[in-house]
Order: sequence, then C-alpha cells, then structure tokens
Amino acid sequence: MPLVDTAAPFVVRDLALAEAGRHQLRLAENEMPGLMALRDEFGPTQPLKGARIAGSLHMTVQTAVLIETLVALGAQVRWASCNIFSTQDEAAAAVAVGPTGTVDAPAGVPVFAWKGETLEEYWACTERIFDWSAEAAAAGADWTGPNMILDDGGDATLLVHKGREFELAGAVPAAEAGDPEEWRVILGVLSRSLDASPDRWQRTAADIQGVTEETTTGVHRLYELARAGELLFPAINVNDSVTKSKFDNKYGIRHSLPDGINRATDVLMGGKVAFVAGYGDVGKGAAEALRGQGARVIVSEVDPINALQAAMDGYQVAKLESVIDQIDILITGTGNKDVVTVDHLLGLKHLAVVGNVGHFDNEIDMAGLEAVAGAEKIEIKPQVHEWRLPTGRSILVLSEGRLMNLGNATGHPSFVMSNSFTNQVLAQIELYAFRDRYATDVHVLPKHLDEKVARLHLDALGVELTTLSPEQAAYIGVEVDGPYKPEHYRY
Amino acid sequence: MPLVDTAAPFVVRDLALAEAGRHQLRLAENEMPGLMALRDEFGPTQPLKGARIAGSLHMTVQTAVLIETLVALGAQVRWASCNIFSTQDEAAAAVAVGPTGTVDAPAGVPVFAWKGETLEEYWACTERIFDWSAEAAAAGADWTGPNMILDDGGDATLLVHKGREFELAGAVPAAEAGDPEEWRVILGVLSRSLDASPDRWQRTAADIQGVTEETTTGVHRLYELARAGELLFPAINVNDSVTKSKFDNKYGIRHSLPDGINRATDVLMGGKVAFVAGYGDVGKGAAEALRGQGARVIVSEVDPINALQAAMDGYQVAKLESVIDQIDILITGTGNKDVVTVDHLLGLKHLAVVGNVGHFDNEIDMAGLEAVAGAEKIEIKPQVHEWRLPTGRSILVLSEGRLMNLGNATGHPSFVMSNSFTNQVLAQIELYAFRDRYATDVHVLPKHLDEKVARLHLDALGVELTTLSPEQAAYIGVEVDGPYKPEHYRY
Amino acid sequence: MPLVDTAAPFVVRDLALAEAGRHQLRLAENEMPGLMALRDEFGPTQPLKGARIAGSLHMTVQTAVLIETLVALGAQVRWASCNIFSTQDEAAAAVAVGPTGTVDAPAGVPVFAWKGETLEEYWACTERIFDWSAEAAAAGADWTGPNMILDDGGDATLLVHKGREFELAGAVPAAEAGDPEEWRVILGVLSRSLDASPDRWQRTAADIQGVTEETTTGVHRLYELARAGELLFPAINVNDSVTKSKFDNKYGIRHSLPDGINRATDVLMGGKVAFVAGYGDVGKGAAEALRGQGARVIVSEVDPINALQAAMDGYQVAKLESVIDQIDILITGTGNKDVVTVDHLLGLKHLAVVGNVGHFDNEIDMAGLEAVAGAEKIEIKPQVHEWRLPTGRSILVLSEGRLMNLGNATGHPSFVMSNSFTNQVLAQIELYAFRDRYATDVHVLPKHLDEKVARLHLDALGVELTTLSPEQAAYIGVEVDGPYKPEHYRY
Amino acid sequence: MPLVDTAAPFVVRDLALAEAGRHQLRLAENEMPGLMALRDEFGPTQPLKGARIAGSLHMTVQTAVLIETLVALGAQVRWASCNIFSTQDEAAAAVAVGPTGTVDAPAGVPVFAWKGETLEEYWACTERIFDWSAEAAAAGADWTGPNMILDDGGDATLLVHKGREFELAGAVPAAEAGDPEEWRVILGVLSRSLDASPDRWQRTAADIQGVTEETTTGVHRLYELARAGELLFPAINVNDSVTKSKFDNKYGIRHSLPDGINRATDVLMGGKVAFVAGYGDVGKGAAEALRGQGARVIVSEVDPINALQAAMDGYQVAKLESVIDQIDILITGTGNKDVVTVDHLLGLKHLAVVGNVGHFDNEIDMAGLEAVAGAEKIEIKPQVHEWRLPTGRSILVLSEGRLMNLGNATGHPSFVMSNSFTNQVLAQIELYAFRDRYATDVHVLPKHLDEKVARLHLDALGVELTTLSPEQAAYIGVEVDGPYKPEHYRY
Repeated sequence: MPLVDTAAPFVVRDLALAEAGRHQLRLAENEMPGLMALRDEFGPTQPLKGARIAGSLHMTVQTAVLIETLVALGAQVRWASCNIFSTQDEAAAAVAVGPTGTVDAPAGVPVFAWKGETLEEYWACTERIFDWSAEAAAAGADWTGPNMILDDGGDATLLVHKGREFELAGAVPAAEAGDPEEWRVILGVLSRSLDASPDRWQRTAADIQGVTEETTTGVHRLYELARAGELLFPAINVNDSVTKSKFDNKYGIRHSLPDGINRATDVLMGGKVAFVAGYGDVGKGAAEALRGQGARVIVSEVDPINALQAAMDGYQVAKLESVIDQIDILITGTGNKDVVTVDHLLGLKHLAVVGNVGHFDNEIDMAGLEAVAGAEKIEIKPQVHEWRLPTGRSILVLSEGRLMNLGNATGHPSFVMSNSFTNQVLAQIELYAFRDRYATDVHVLPKHLDEKVARLHLDALGVELTTLSPEQAAYIGVEVDGPYKPEHYRY
Repeated sequence: MPLVDTAAPFVVRDLALAEAGRHQLRLAENEMPGLMALRDEFGPTQPLKGARIAGSLHMTVQTAVLIETLVALGAQVRWASCNIFSTQDEAAAAVAVGPTGTVDAPAGVPVFAWKGETLEEYWACTERIFDWSAEAAAAGADWTGPNMILDDGGDATLLVHKGREFELAGAVPAAEAGDPEEWRVILGVLSRSLDASPDRWQRTAADIQGVTEETTTGVHRLYELARAGELLFPAINVNDSVTKSKFDNKYGIRHSLPDGINRATDVLMGGKVAFVAGYGDVGKGAAEALRGQGARVIVSEVDPINALQAAMDGYQVAKLESVIDQIDILITGTGNKDVVTVDHLLGLKHLAVVGNVGHFDNEIDMAGLEAVAGAEKIEIKPQVHEWRLPTGRSILVLSEGRLMNLGNATGHPSFVMSNSFTNQVLAQIELYAFRDRYATDVHVLPKHLDEKVARLHLDALGVELTTLSPEQAAYIGVEVDGPYKPEHYRY
Repeated sequence: MPLVDTAAPFVVRDLALAEAGRHQLRLAENEMPGLMALRDEFGPTQPLKGARIAGSLHMTVQTAVLIETLVALGAQVRWASCNIFSTQDEAAAAVAVGPTGTVDAPAGVPVFAWKGETLEEYWACTERIFDWSAEAAAAGADWTGPNMILDDGGDATLLVHKGREFELAGAVPAAEAGDPEEWRVILGVLSRSLDASPDRWQRTAADIQGVTEETTTGVHRLYELARAGELLFPAINVNDSVTKSKFDNKYGIRHSLPDGINRATDVLMGGKVAFVAGYGDVGKGAAEALRGQGARVIVSEVDPINALQAAMDGYQVAKLESVIDQIDILITGTGNKDVVTVDHLLGLKHLAVVGNVGHFDNEIDMAGLEAVAGAEKIEIKPQVHEWRLPTGRSILVLSEGRLMNLGNATGHPSFVMSNSFTNQVLAQIELYAFRDRYATDVHVLPKHLDEKVARLHLDALGVELTTLSPEQAAYIGVEVDGPYKPEHYRY
Repeated sequence: MPLVDTAAPFVVRDLALAEAGRHQLRLAENEMPGLMALRDEFGPTQPLKGARIAGSLHMTVQTAVLIETLVALGAQVRWASCNIFSTQDEAAAAVAVGPTGTVDAPAGVPVFAWKGETLEEYWACTERIFDWSAEAAAAGADWTGPNMILDDGGDATLLVHKGREFELAGAVPAAEAGDPEEWRVILGVLSRSLDASPDRWQRTAADIQGVTEETTTGVHRLYELARAGELLFPAINVNDSVTKSKFDNKYGIRHSLPDGINRATDVLMGGKVAFVAGYGDVGKGAAEALRGQGARVIVSEVDPINALQAAMDGYQVAKLESVIDQIDILITGTGNKDVVTVDHLLGLKHLAVVGNVGHFDNEIDMAGLEAVAGAEKIEIKPQVHEWRLPTGRSILVLSEGRLMNLGNATGHPSFVMSNSFTNQVLAQIELYAFRDRYATDVHVLPKHLDEKVARLHLDALGVELTTLSPEQAAYIGVEVDGPYKPEHYRY
C-alpha cells in the first residue's frame, strides 16, 4: 500500500517513518555544508520568495535537505521522484510532515513519491507537482501551476513541453505499435489532461521562468529542444558545473560502487580482476575505488584520449572480449548501450559479478540475457540475481542491470550531493531572481558560482584556502576573489 | 523466540531460512577455493574419519562451508558460536538441515547458535557441543564427548580446563563480588555439571587429542596455560600462520571497515580526516582502505617500528589528542584498552564517526562514555548510536564500541576466511591424524602447510606461480616444492 | 667555446658528439611513436613540401626527433633553442650533421643553439632562424625568410611582430631605465636589423602563413595580440590540446620532479613531508609522484575547486605558512609569482629542499633570498645550492629557482613530448596545407586531431581500443571514428 | 691512477675531492638522525673505546657518516669497500682527511677504497684493514690486528677464517681448474700472507671479539659456518633486524629503482608494462615505486604466500614467459639465479629496459647473453648498454646485470642507511662492550634495540609516538618502553 494517496492531497500515514527520516536529515545536514551555508547566507534576504518550484528528483534524504533549503530561501515547493525505485520513504515522510509538523497537521512540503511506484503512479505523481490549485486558492491567486522547475532527467520538463504541444495540436496522438510502455502512460496522462482542460499546459508553460536540470540525459534533451527552437523557457545546465560533473560522477561512484558490491554480494574485491567499461569520470571513480580495495583493474575505452589516460594511470586497457574469461567483477559506466553483450555474459567466470553504474539498464544487454534459452534467474536477495546459464556457469547480476549504486547501495553520499544541490539552489536563484540575465537557451552556471559551490565545502573538510595578493592576482590577470580559470580549463 | 531448542536436540524450525542459507553457502563455496580444494584432495582418503569435533566459532556462512568441509573429510561435528551476536541464522539453519535434509529429517550437523543469545544461552550452547551422548548411543560407543576442539577465542577450551580443574578440586568456587557477569554464568554451568557428574570434564579432557585455535586472544590463553604447565592437550596456533594473520587482519579489515562505515552511516570517506589507532596488520588494512576511498589518514602507534612503517607509507603519525579536533572518522585497531578516552570523545568534531575493529569493546572507553553526565544516547538504527554530548556536539558510535566490521558489516569476506579455515582444517588433520608428531604444547603449522594454504587460493585469482628449477632451488638451498623461507621471514 | 658559429653558417665541430646524439635519437624515436607514425602516414604525400619552418624550442633529443619528422614530411627547417640552458649539445650536433651527413658535409638542419648561451647569443641565434638567404639562393627564390613559425614561449613570434612594428614606426625605441636586460638585447638586435634593411620584418611577416605555439606563456601573448587586433597571422594554440596540457603537465612532472630531486639531492622522499604549491595539472602530477614515493603531501591552492579536488584526492590542503616548519620538500607549480616568500624560506626545516616546476624563477622569491643579510650561498654541485640562513638553518635550492625538472633532471621524457610534438606537427600541417581554414586568430586543434594524437600513442603501450558499433555511435550521437566528446568535456 | 696507494699508508691526493665529500657528509648527516643521535647519546661514555674495527662495506657518503660515528664513540677504524665499483671517491677522501685534517696531515681514518678497483686491488685493500701494525706501534701494543669486524657480504670474515684454516693446514691449496677468478686472487693473498707469517690469521682470529654482518649473503655464510661448528667468534646478524631488512630492502629499492631507470634511460615509466621478478621486500618496494610512477606492474613469484600477497595488493602475477612480449621494463629482485634467461631476453619488446636489483649479476643470464651468436653490445653511456639481438630487436641492459640501483643510481639513500647503520653501531657496542652476553654463534639484535633504531628516526620525520599508560602496558603484557611484540611478529 502506498504511503501517500496520489488522488487526494498528500497524507502522511506513518509518523515513526517521518521521525526516522528526521534523524537522517539531521545527520545529512552535517554532511551538506553547501546547502546549510546557503540557508545562512540567503535565509535573511529570501531570494526565492514567490518562487513556486515543481521538483522532480530522486526523493532521498539528501533531496530532503535540498527541499528544505529551497523553502528556507522563501520558495514554495511540490515534489515528485524522478525514478520509480529511488524514493527513501522515511525521507519523503519527513519532508511531508516537516520539521515542526505532525501527521495530522503536516507542516512540510507536498511530496508525491514512494519506493516502488508503478509507471502509472509515477506519471500521476509527476503531474501532481504541476497542480498548484490548493496553493493558489490559499493565496487567492489566479495561477494554478509552478513558476520554476527543478528537474532530473527532464521528465517534468517533458510533460510541460509535450502537454503544450498536444494542446496546440488539439489532440494527443495515439500510441503506435512498438512505442515503449512508458510513452503510452505519458500519452494517457496528457490525454486525460486535455480532456479536462484545453490550455492547462499552455498556461503552465507561460508561467515558468526557467528550469534547472541535474543530469546528462536531461541536459541532452534540453540542448535538442534549444537546437530545434522548441525550448519554452531558459534552462541552466547544472550537470556541467565542475563541482557537479567532476565531483558526483567521480567521487560519488568511488564511494557507492564498492558499497553496492559489498551490500549485494559480500565478495572480497582484493585480488580479483575487475573490468570497468568506460574511463570517463564515472569510470575513473570506479577504477580508483576498485584499485583502492586491492583489485586488479582492466579498463575499456572507445575514446583514445581517455584510453591513454587510463594507461598513464597504470591500468591495463583492453577490449572486453579479450579478457572476458579472467573477469571476477564487471562494471559498466559508459552511458552507451550494449556495452556488455550476451556473448560477453556467457563468457564470464563462474559467479562473476555484473553491475552497471552508467546510466540506463541497456549498458548490459539484459533483454538479450532474458532471451537466452535455458537461462534461469534465481533471486538471491532483492536486487541480486543469479543467472544460471546454459554454459553451466552462473553470473550474479546486480539491480537487474539498472544503476547498482542506487539499487544495491544508497547512491551518492550527502557530501557529494551537497555539491550538486548547492549548484541547483544557486541556479534556481539565478533563473528566478535574475531572470532577465538569461535568454531562452541552455546556460551553464557562471564560473564564480561554480567556485562558490566549492568554497562552501572547504571548511567542513578542514581545507585552508590560500588567498592571492592583489599583486599576484594582477600578475595572472584575475580578480583576487576569482574566477580563476578560463572557461576551457579542464580541472 | 530462538530458532533452536537448547534443551532438546537441535530442531530447525524454518525451512525457508535454511534454503536461503543454502543459496549463500553455494555462493560462498565459490569464494572459498581452499576449502573446496581440500574436499577434492582429502575426500577420498577421509583423514578425519573418527574425529569428533566440538566447534566454537562464529556461526556464519563461511563457517558453514568449514563445517561441511570437516564432514566431507570424515569428521562428526557439533557446533556453537563463539559470540552472542555473530550467528547468521540462515547459515545455522542450512548447516543443521544439511544439503540433503529437510526440516523434519535434518541431515546436517547439530548447531547450537542463533543471533542474539543471552549469556546464559551462550554458555548452554557451548556446553552442548561437548555432549555427544546421542552420537555415542548411535555408535554403540563408550565415549560421550568429542576428541577434538576447533576453537575461536578459547571458550570451549576454557570450559574443559576449568571443568576438570573444579572436578579435581571437588567443588566449583563461588563467584566473588566484582566478578564479571560472564564468569558467574560459567560457574553456574560448571556447578550444574559437577552436580550431575563428578568426572565428566576429566573424561572429556582425556579423550581430546588437540585443539586448533583461531584468534590472538585464544592463542594468548593457550600460551599462558602452556607456560603454567596446565595445558591438557596439544594445540595448534592457527592465528599465526602467515596466511591467517597477515591475510585476515590486513585484507579482511581493508574490506570490511569501509563496508561497515558505509552501511552504518553512508558518509563520504573521500576528503575526510580519518584517524587509525594502531598500525599493526589491522591498522595497515584500515589505513589502506580509507586512503583508497580518498580519506586523509592519520595514524597513531606506540611501537616505534610500526610508527616508522606508517611514516614510510606516507601517513601522518600523531597522538590522538594532538589532532582530535580535525577528525571525521576515528577507528581503533590496537588490541589494547582505553585507546580512545572520554576526553578524546568529547574533543571530536560534531558527528564524528567512531568505530572499533580491534578486539574488545574497551578500546573505546564506552563505560566512561555512559557515565558522562548529560550525555544522551539515541539509536539512529541498530548498531548506530548518536551520543549527544554535554559539549553540544554529537558523535556517532558504531556497534556500541564492539567490532564494527562484524556489527555494521558482515565481517571478513569468504575468500579471506577460506585462508583462515583452510589452515584450521589442515591443523585438525595434523592433530588428529598425526597426533604423535605434536607434544602437549602450542605449535604453529609447519611452513609447508602455510604455503599450501596460499597455493590453494591462487587459481581462483588467476595467479600463475613460477616454478623453481632444481638448479635454482639448490642455489638458494630449498626444495623445489618449498618451504621457501626461513621461519623468521616476515613477508 | 660554442659548438656553433653564430655568425657563419652552422658548423658542427664534434662528430663524436653527433654520434652520441644519434644513439640517443634512435632510443628516443622508440619512445615517440606519434612522430614516427606521422612519418609513416605523411611521408609519401609530403604535406609540408614547400614549408620553410623557423623553429624556436628547447633543442633537446626529443626536439631533434620533431625536427627530423618535419623534414620527413617535406619541410625545410632552421632551428634555435627557446632557452639559454636547455640545449642538449649532442642532440644539436646530431640534427645538424643529419642521419647521413658528416662533419665536413653536414646533411642536417641548421641549428643555432648550445647549452649556456648568453642573452646576446640567444637572440642572435633566434634572428638566424629568420635568415633564409642561403636557402633562397639555393632555390633561386625571391623570399629570404620562413613561411611558418614553430614557437615555444613566443620569442620568434615576438621578433617578427616587434621588428615589423619598429620598421613601420621608422625607428627602434631606446631602452628605458628599468627595462629588463633582455629587452635591451632585443632592441639591439632589431636596431641593427633596421639599419641593415628598412623592411625585412615586414616582408617576413607577410610571408608567414602561421605559427604553432607550444606553451601557456606563448599562448597568453598570442591571445593578447589577437585581442589587440595586432596578430599578423593565424596561430594554433597547441598548448591547450588535451593531449598536450593534460599530458605533459601532469605525467611529465610526475616523471621529472622526483627525478630532479633524486639527481640533485639523493634524499629519501619516503616518510618526508612534501608541500606542493598549486594543484593544477602540474601540481597533480607532482603530488602523485611524491605520494608514490611514500611522502606525505600537503597542497596549497587559491582556487576553491582545485582545493576541493586536492582534498577529495586525500591530500591535506593548507597555507604554506601554516605548516612551514614541518616541510622537508617544498615544490612550486602555480604559474604565479612570490608563492614562496623569504619569510617562508626562513621558516623551513634545516636543509629542506626547495624547487620550482611552475614557470618562472619568481615563484620562489629568489631576489629576496639574495638580499637577505647574512645569507650565504654554497654550491654543492651545479644547480644545487645550499643557502645558509641567518637563522642558523640552511635550505637546499634547486636550479636557482628556475625549472628544476629541466635544470636538475632532463625535463619531460620522450613519450610525453611525443604527444606534444605530434600536436605540433599536425598543427603545422593544418596551417600550412589548409591555410584557408584558419582566420587570423588563435585556434585550438580540432578535437579529432587531438584524439588522433592519443590514438597514435596507444599501440606502443599495448592499449587495445574498443570500437563503437554504428548503432552505439548513433545512440550517443557521434561518428564511429569520433570526435567523441563535446568541446567543454574536461577529461 | 688510484686515489690511494695500497702499498704505502693511505695518502689522500686530492683535497678538492675531500672538500666536496665533506659537503656531502654534512648533508647526509642531516638525513641520518639515528647515527647522529648515537653520537649524542654515547659520545660522552665512549663505549667503543679500545675497539679496533676492521670495516668492509661500500665506501659511500653514508658509510662515511657511519665511520665517523664509530670514531665518535671511541673506536679506531680501518676501512675497505666490499665492492670494486661502489666507492664514492669524494666520500673516501673526506673520511681519510677527516673533518679537521688536511691532505698533508690527514686526521681521519685509513681508507683503502676507490671506484673501479681490480680484483687484485680489492683483496689487497681488504687485507690492509687487518694490518694494524702502525696503530699498534703508536700505542706500544702487542696486537697487530683488529678486535672487531664490521662486514658486508662476509669478505673480511672469510679472509680471517680461510687464513687461519690454511695456516693450521700449513699450506694454501692451489687453485683448481674451474675455480672462479676471485678465488684465485684470494688464494694468492693468503699464500703471500702465509709466506710472511705462519700465524698471522690465528692471532687475528683470537683477538676478534665479534663480527656484525650487514647482508643476506654474509649472514647466510655465517649460519653455514655456525652449523659446521667453524665459526670463530660471535656474530650479529644485522640484516634481519626489522629496521634493516624491512626498511632498506623495501623503502631503499622504492627510492633507488626508479632513480636508476631515470638516470640510465630517461624513459617514461607511466603507462608502461613493468615486470618485477620476486615479491619479497625488494620486489614489494620495486612494484610500489613503479606503480607510483603510473606503470602497470606484473609480478612473478615462486612462493605461493608471496604470490598471494602480490595478488591481494592488486598486481597481476604471471610467469615471465607468459607475458614476455608485453614488457617494457624488466626488473629482477629474487636473490636467485637465471631468473631471466636468454630466451626471455630474446622475447622482449624492442628496447625494453632490463635491470637487476636482487643480488648477483646472475639473476639475468648475462653470460648466456654474451654467448648469443650475432648479438652486439653498444655502450650508450657507462652502465647502459644496448644489446642488438639477432631477432632484429634490441634491449637496454643496465649495469651489465649487476645492481642497477647502485650502478645507475646512488644506492640506498642516507635515511634508509641510517637505519641499517644504527643497527650496525648498536651491534658493535653489543659485541664489544657486552661480549659475555653472546656465545660464539649468530645472533640477531634484541628487539628493544631494533625498536630503538626506529625510535631514533621518528623525530626527523615529525612522527609523534604514542606512549602506553602503565595500565595499558600491563593489559597487553609488555613494558611501557617495550619491547612491544613477540619475536615471531611479522610487521
């Protein structure tokens, strides 16, 4: 039974859950110094006063701290998760109840998310973050939707763009044979919406001042919209802040990959042969973590520059098929599909561990695996499956090929997310409070804000920053307070 | 409700648990190549035929593979755990049911262990592994006890020695004021035993051919007994095999320390200041693991040689009090007491994580912490407690100061335990099948067996061993097949 | 006595030197697979046929392989060093004699460079690379200068720009009080040139199709010229190719920093406290190398992003003055001035080692040190000086504060330079053979060429590159053969 | 022309050399805190007063500090090198002149050593350290030889034992066909000695109170003598002190191996495949150094325990022949012979670098290489030879297969040698001042002295040692001041 009622206003049914979540929030706050510093800095001036933020991002403990930071800066917020499995129910409950609320009198933020939603429920939840009728009524306002989106993966942005497009077309198209199941669900949601109102999404789109987007995937969609001239409002690409992409990919995976392997399998990594497909930031973090546990790491790459980096960092660089029969642990982090094929899976050592920390579950050909005649799937425990193969060998597949650092561990830790989310809050402030600085295009945060995000995380680590003298700053042609590097600097 | 009935013969009440355990055993077997190789090598000749082994060692999945290996080599076995918390119930159930048994017709080994025993239950279980009357009856034999002990920490050995001592004295002494609770329980067990039989432990002791002991602590007790002339049968010190002490301490902790921190707290280790008290094998593994996750590690040592090693390995070496206010993660691995005092705890950063991977829970002065006026203990989740201190800061204490790699993680992984347990099995064979080689003293395994243990773990890691030519062997004065090193070699 | 006669055509005076150099070239060719691959690929088509390249770049063994690669692709070349100390005389001799020449009949390239030039000699040499009258005479041509520049630091480019500027002004300005000595020398060269010809540099500038520039400093000057509208011909910024900046800075310094410390001092790095000022690519390489030798590394940074990276990589980040009395080895790699002040130097441990791998000798305040009353400078050996300080302590200064990886070691190794120089050759081909693609501005190499440079270095390291399937390439929106990443990707 | 006259009393011919050496001694003293601390501690009490030490050990700068420490503790000393190539002439000169002497009035220690001795010269020098007639005359004493030996490799000890043996036999045996050249030289020396005196070595042996031996090889010889009942005086095995074997082998090689590769070849280690034969302490240090430079390291081992350690440390473990065609850098550190055969050498990559840091030059089959038909040896520079092989490929052999860390670099750095030599001095004190504690056998230093050696090196590294409380010491059964570990502890 879901924790929340998607049809009725949100009701928290479990105070114990909310209290457990509140404990975790308190611990997480200590690990999210960037967000807490923003509360201190901007709490008094309330730069987000008047902002109505529709948020679609994994409803975890860390996101709870983000949400309460947005609120502390003046915003009103409604929230959904961006993934059917990623919600931590105690975090959702804690945010919904709020720090001072009770179950009967919640004083928090409406949250539409629970662990294990169906696709139908997921998109219903997403739609709910655009329904601000209760807030409008309370405010005596004539708007009924948000004026800002905070997005992860672009689902919230998609709904607005597609909803408006179909309204203008006068009809929601029928699903076609071969359309993914999820697209059918989206069409259903928008079809019901169009039945109820012919211009809801047009009005919503017109109100929205901007979107801040968390991920590579969402950013990719935004650039496509912008190139096609279809982007409806300015967007800030949070993903490509240095303090986001170079931090959560690399250091987040370094943390959560071994954590996931441990929780899923308890196998010793030391002495084992681990293969990491992809040596981007994710692969770099994965390889470092595995080496740090004493594994021998082999890397694959398609980009010769990254391949050369891997070699210079001391890793063997090989094609997967060249070393397949030596591998104990196989990790994908490429962002591409079919990186691990069925032939690869059939060639692995007995009980090799297979996991993905890239993006989609198609990095490993799970569909192909399911079609192997004679293969048998045994659940060892949730998110850990032994596949008995017709070769007589088995493999252990984590999280069914989806992100194992989320499915088998707890994703990026708070400190890493503090970097990402401090970027998010600064981006929300930029687009809301300084809207006129941003054309309807996709922007990255200015470098001084990227540096600010880093700066807000130094004290917690005991880092002492050196200050340039004015003479030194002049000598290298920068301001004493930065920004310090040209745009193309690679860190 | 306990899984087993300590009074009656063991009854498995939960087949699902046994089946889940059987899955885990199968996975563990793949990670325990040493034990599986012994089954292949010695299964046909049954060197343990006739051995009646009383085992007292954490009743985990890995121990289950050990037990079934002993059985595969011909032994009869009865088993208890050596720790009230460490039993994995599914492993106990799987062993009890046996690979071919059912709940109604168990075909396994009598196991007297479950997670969360009381001290009374614990010592009752330990006593049960010495009661072989059912087996004797089935065999029509006149013995009623075991002829071998496999011990971890020395509790089984203690019971025999103390039982016999009190029998000879004619009475069990009364507990004195200040005696630990556990000692009172032991006296109770032995007192009831003496009431029932005046010579049970004398007969048992006379039958026992030897004990193989797993740990530093147990070995320490054995050497004390031997020095005092009180040791009743030969003992093999498994702990000081190279493939035990240098492997499970260092590589086991390297694995399970970060695992425990992750499961307990989810805090990012990267960028944090971690302090490791002690740079023995445990400390070396801890420091390497933390550095491998990007932490900055500071080490303390009392032994100048180990301190110099730590410095040469690139670590800062400092007294705890000198850097106490910089520490995010504080780990003890010394084997000594009061390493972390209340003053230290009060001086830590807010929400610093405190855990012990040494031996006893007195490495951290938990008693002192409990006595701090105004300190408040909040359970965040089982084995994770926030202590709110009168300073206004909190600390996070893992596993109440007991071994956090057991309490918050799953202890040493199977591959590491395979090394330890292969030593155990070889030691059991030595003392049982080659009893006359061993005087009533404490012995270490001969080096060629230590090397054999290593050798049995190489294939699984894809290690290709180089073979000496006869000329090369002669040149360095060894046999082609080893042993290769003098006794004092330090590896 | 200099090896070459700067007034007369180049004369090689020492065949033994040339032969020794030829041995080294042969070894270096094996370590410069990128350049050798270009010879194979482009030798047949001679894309540089007709190119007359004036080169100004450290005249080392690696540069010799570069020069002979340019010749193998059809170019004519004249060469000077870009530093008075950096020439390896045997390399200069080998290039001048040429692979098939003799001292009496040199068949190589005119080289104007020797180790230990005066400033007068240096600029005379630089002027000589623009004097192509002999080549013109031989070709019956009407040009007298080069049509391409290959520059390192921008001195050759400066001479053309300033020469033309003064010609147009009709006079070379007089030096002013306070002008650096080097500027006076340059004015002298140009004044004599103007006396000899009123339009030499105008004609030269008009002939030049482009310049390819190696370093940060030179690139900085080019961007300034471009911004001021004074750039006379297109420029390619080789420095900011990924395979240049991320490779020679990081991996080159990782190699040559410990090498320089060893050759200069033979001190053990293990166990020592090493301080690295700056955590850019140079600092990253330095810190990794020192940690790899067992040193404890402390880093300083002014940029909070780089500071956070250092912390996440496990280094202590502190201000120099906070830890000055703990430091055994102090290394600067910032590109800024006065990073190490006299106060810092006075506060160091006795016989601390001080070296610079940044850019100029003003990273360490050497002028200030020389002015310290009572300080005494003792040459331990060339490029290693003990400074006895009035504190009673001494410090060991390497290379008088100039680049110690050049002065005390041999600079970047061949493999690293092969990456940089393969970029150089590709950039020369671009500007010479595809001149019309490049406006008179500063360009970076297109990413596919950057990737090509990496690709040419993989086989030598045994790297197996994975190939995208067409479906995979389409899925991530790239061509199968790349380029693979967006321009802003940070590697 | 040799620096010293072996026939006449030692004469220093080069004051500049002595002064250069004195500078280096001063720097080395700063890196040898153990020896300097012994001067402070024992200078006042002169425990070596009356000791007449014959020293045979590489005459380097570090040895110079050792010699002057022995003198500072009251000893008289005569010195030879234990290797024909290892003498640093400036160190020899500095010691001979002494800190306060001049060339004409040397005030140092008689040193019989120079770089590049012949075997004849070498053994003549070794004999000279036993000729104390000048000192005896000056003292009006009736002895003519030393009363202590400080040995490295056992040559000095050999001379005494063989000299006495042949005297007792009445004749020196003739060399036989097949005897090594060196043995013939030794027989010559002893034959001339016997001609001159029938009992010189008997008297010398009777006077000698003991020998302290530095190396594995020398220790091996001592144990053989002891086993055979032929040992003439007590010996202390310095080699097996923890602060010797675990420090100079591991940390010394970690320092000097990459140093030697750099000085010899300047090849980039990063990205290369390096093979390390042997994973004892030497191999561990070598592998760590190469990995620290970004190489991919493959290890070979014959001992399964060490092989398993290598795997657990993340290295590939393979037979040399299995990976021979991937190797860029091949290093031996086994202490065995024929580890690298001619077949291996023929199978290496073109221009692979081959070096030995084990013990003798027969780890690599240099004799076999010299016998390869068609192989050509080209000296690139001293101690670096290209061997052109009939395969068309070349290899680069360092130091002709002898210790390349000595031949191509400068051996162990001062700090490492300070550990070894502090052991030596303490061992000399033990055998000289506490002779009656030591039977005529081979001893290791008591653990508290081993710990003392470490202790004396901590301050220089900024190490803060933790002190046990009396309660803690009692708890683990040690004294507060140590020793802290049982004898079998492996560190």
